[in-house]
Amino acid sequence: MSVYTPVSQAELAAWLRNYSVGALRALEPIKSGIENTNYFVTTSQGRYVLTLFERLPAAELPFYLELMAHLARHGIPCPAPIADLANALLGELNGKPAALVTRLPGRSIERPGAHECAELGALLARMHLAGRSYGGYLDNPRGPRWWRVAARDLRPFLDAARSKLLEAELDFQAGQRFPDLPRGPVHADLFRDNALFDDGRLSGVFDFYFAGVDCLLYDVAVCANDWCLADPVADRGLDPGLTRAFLAAYDALRPFSAVERAAWPAMLRAAALRFWLSRMHDLHLPRPGELVHAHDPEHFRLVLERRIAEAPPWIGAP
Amino acid sequence: MSVYTPVSQAELAAWLRNYSVGALRALEPIKSGIENTNYFVTTSQGRYVLTLFERLPAAELPFYLELMAHLARHGIPCPAPIADLANALLGELNGKPAALVTRLPGRSIERPGAHECAELGALLARMHLAGRSYGGYLDNPRGPRWWRVAARDLRPFLDAARSKLLEAELDFQAGQRFPDLPRGPVHADLFRDNALFDDGRLSGVFDFYFAGVDCLLYDVAVCANDWCLADPVADRGLDPGLTRAFLAAYDALRPFSAVERAAWPAMLRAAALRFWLSRMHDLHLPRPGELVHAHDPEHFRLVLERRIAEAPPWIGAP
Repeated sequence: MSVYTPVSQAELAAWLRNYSVGALRALEPIKSGIENTNYFVTTSQGRYVLTLFERLPAAELPFYLELMAHLARHGIPCPAPIADLANALLGELNGKPAALVTRLPGRSIERPGAHECAELGALLARMHLAGRSYGGYLDNPRGPRWWRVAARDLRPFLDAARSKLLEAELDFQAGQRFPDLPRGPVHADLFRDNALFDDGRLSGVFDFYFAGVDCLLYDVAVCANDWCLADPVADRGLDPGLTRAFLAAYDALRPFSAVERAAWPAMLRAAALRFWLSRMHDLHLPRPGELVHAHDPEHFRLVLERRIAEAPPWIGAP
Repeated sequence: MSVYTPVSQAELAAWLRNYSVGALRALEPIKSGIENTNYFVTTSQGRYVLTLFERLPAAELPFYLELMAHLARHGIPCPAPIADLANALLGELNGKPAALVTRLPGRSIERPGAHECAELGALLARMHLAGRSYGGYLDNPRGPRWWRVAARDLRPFLDAARSKLLEAELDFQAGQRFPDLPRGPVHADLFRDNALFDDGRLSGVFDFYFAGVDCLLYDVAVCANDWCLADPVADRGLDPGLTRAFLAAYDALRPFSAVERAAWPAMLRAAALRFWLSRMHDLHLPRPGELVHAHDPEHFRLVLERRIAEAPPWIGAP
C-alpha cells in the first residue's frame, strides 16, 4: 500500500477547477506505486491518473513531465500530462507537487511471447526516435556514478561471494567505454509491469520517473533482461526467439549500429547490475517511512551471472 | 468529393517515416471536406487524420495546429497534431502543407436533445477556459471586416428584399460595441457535424480551420444557432429547453457576465449574418476549381430574420 498522502473527493474536486477536464466522478487509490502517491481519477471528460510526488527532487519533475508531453505529442502511447488553466503541467496538492496525466487502456501481461516482444521492440524504437528532438536533459539517475555510491553503501551487507561478484563487475564495467553509442532520453525501467496491452497491441508505457539521458542501447538491455527471459524463475538466460523478435522489431525502425552490436553483451550486464544494486539498496537501506516490500535482489544477481556466462542472442544469429 | 490532392499508399508510407506512429496499415479518402484534402490513416499505432491544406494561407496554419495542440494538452477532446521527428507539427506532402492529427472516436448526431446540448455547453466552456492561456493570435477571419467585404461583393446577386435586410443588419451590427466581452480563441464553426458523440458523451470536436480570436460569446451564439433550433426546417426559432440546457451547462463552468447577457440577442444575429454571408459567397462567388455543392444560404437568412424578430431564451428565464 503506497498512498502516502491522502486526497479526499472534495479536495480533488476543488483542485480540478484549475483544469479543463470536467467534473470529478470517481477517485480510487492505486496501491501498487512505490515512489509516489497515485490515484485513478474519472471525470465527465475521461480517465486520468493523479500523481503526488513524494520523493523525487522537485527540480527534476519538469524533465519527466515535459518528456511525457513530448512523446505523447509524437504519438507515443504514454501518459500525457494535462496542463492546468495557467498552462502548467506541474501543480501542487495537499502540500505535494502533483500532476494529472491521461490513463491508458489495457493490462500488463506476465508472460510475453514473441508477438508482445516485437510490439515492445517497435514501440521502444519509435520512442527513442521521437525522444531525440526532446530538449530536456537529466543524467540517468541510476547510471555508473550511482552504481559506485550504492556499492560503497552496500559493502557491509554483502557476503564474500557477492562482494567479489560486485567488485569484479564494477571493474569490468569501468573498462567499458562507449562514446559512440547513440544517446537520448531513455525510459530505463520499462519492465513488463510498466507496459499495457489491449487486444494484442501494446497500448501504453508508463512510469517515466527513472528516465534520463543515456545510451539508447541501455534501454534495450533493460527491456531484454525482463521481457526476454527463457523462464523468469527456472532459467534466466535470454530466450533466443523472444530476444530476436524484440531486437528485430526495434532494428526495423532504428537499425542498430556495429558499435551497438559490439556493446550488447556488456550492456546487458550493466542493466542487470543496476537493478541488482537498486534492489539490494531498497532491501538493506530502505528510506525512512518506506512502506514497500522490496523486490528480491537475488533475481538480478542470477541474471547478472547468467549474462556474464552466456553469449547473448543477437538478430540474425542462429 | 473533395480529395483535391491524391496521396498513394506508397507516398504516405514513405512520408510517415518522418513520424513515430508505426507502420501504415490503411488509407481512406474522406469525401466530406470542403477546404482541405483529408484522409483517414490507420497505422500499427493508432487512427489518424491526414490533412493536406489546399487554400488556407500557410502563415496561418501554425495558429490552428498549435491551438489544437494546446487544447489537447489541456484535455480537450480535439484532434491532437502529431509532431514529426524534427518536432514540427506542419509538414509537406505532394507539394501541399500537411499535418497528421489524431482521429477521435464517435459519430455526429443530427438532432441533439437537451442532454447533447448540455454536453456541448460544458465542453465549449472548458475549451474557452483552456484557450485563454494560448499564446497565438489570429483575428476571426470571418469577423465584421470580412462581412463588409463580402456584402460589397454580393450586392449584384441580391434582390431588393435581401439587399435591404443585409444593409439593415450591417447597420445594426455596426452600432453594437462590446469592448468588455471576454475574448479568446474561438472555434467559430462548431456545428453539429463538427462534433462527435460516443455512448452519449461528447467525444470530440474538430475542424478548427475557421478558428480565431474573438468574443467567447460569439462561439456560444454560433453553436446555439445550429444546435438549439426548435426545428431546423419548420421553425428556426431557438427552442427554450435546448437553449437553456446548453447555456446553463456553459454557465456552470464559465459564468456569463451581465455584459454577455445584454449582448446575447445581437450576438445571435451576428452569428446568423456571418453564415448567411459566407453561404451566399460560396454560392455566387465560388473559388476556381471548387467542387463543393454549396449549402443553401436561405436557411441562415431565415435564422437571421427569426433572431431579429424573437426575444431569444436565456438561462433562468421562464
